[in-house]
Amino acid sequence: MTSSSSGLVILGIDPGSRCTGYGVVRETSGCLELLGTGTIRTNGQDDLSTRLDTIFTRICSLIHEFSPDQAAVEEVFTSKNASSALKLGQARGAVIVACSHQKVPVYSYEPTLVKKSLVGGGRAGKEQVAFMVAQMLGCKPRWAQDASDALAVAIAHLNQRRAAGFGGFK
Amino acid sequence: MTSSSSGLVILGIDPGSRCTGYGVVRETSGCLELLGTGTIRTNGQDDLSTRLDTIFTRICSLIHEFSPDQAAVEEVFTSKNASSALKLGQARGAVIVACSHQKVPVYSYEPTLVKKSLVGGGRAGKEQVAFMVAQMLGCKPRWAQDASDALAVAIAHLNQRRAAGFGGFK
Repeated sequence: MTSSSSGLVILGIDPGSRCTGYGVVRETSGCLELLGTGTIRTNGQDDLSTRLDTIFTRICSLIHEFSPDQAAVEEVFTSKNASSALKLGQARGAVIVACSHQKVPVYSYEPTLVKKSLVGGGRAGKEQVAFMVAQMLGCKPRWAQDASDALAVAIAHLNQRRAAGFGGFK
Repeated sequence: MTSSSSGLVILGIDPGSRCTGYGVVRETSGCLELLGTGTIRTNGQDDLSTRLDTIFTRICSLIHEFSPDQAAVEEVFTSKNASSALKLGQARGAVIVACSHQKVPVYSYEPTLVKKSLVGGGRAGKEQVAFMVAQMLGCKPRWAQDASDALAVAIAHLNQRRAAGFGGFK
């Protein structure tokens, strides 16, 4: 699937074992448009395979609904302990597999690069990033944290494309 | 899918980011039979999404080929550092999602429990476990380490079922 006249659709994802944020952004002729955003919540009472399947199935549904050209996924902090990293890794595996199995190319970005791309500094606060995301999409920052982070990584990916010479947005 | 006359088929999996071992074992009227075993190797030159998709797709193919009733997956050591745990978690996520999405129930076992179940001690060496796996399947221990570990977790799962009163094998 390619962009052309209908614009380039990016599915941004912030994976987590309990909450996985997503945000779908379209860039057409230099303008950004918010297509959808939200949080995939898993039930803590369910076993691991059910929770991972929930994430996988919901990401597959989003791909069917929005037909993204590319996906951008936030890297997981590896400074956390091994147990947390394992849980996050499992959620991240489910997310990436859902995209790659449906032929949606996946790009990965570290949180510092996302922040730097949006607000110019790698140590910016979450609220500052959320404010900038809303500004760029012409909305109020009314989303949950995971959803806002997912939108941020989608926009950062478009910024990276622009920097690499693939066109830009206003 | 249930067992009955055709026996209970277990897909054992030892996930890893580079090598994922698998072993398929059928238990019929108390007898164990090896149906298939091997290693899914990913190309270190490929990007993460391609590697995870390779694991996902191969596990899906194994499920189509052998129609396992249940899957048993080895737990990942969380004593490793966070970066290793993240990589292993991603592979584990791809494996579990492949099973759960095709309605194959997934059971998870810690390595110490697998060892204890097969050779009576949680600190047994890999060779000792491989020897016991071969003994129980009536073969020589000729498999790669990951494949042997996958067969071990499949047999340990059948042991656990027996201990829980779901029947046994010789």
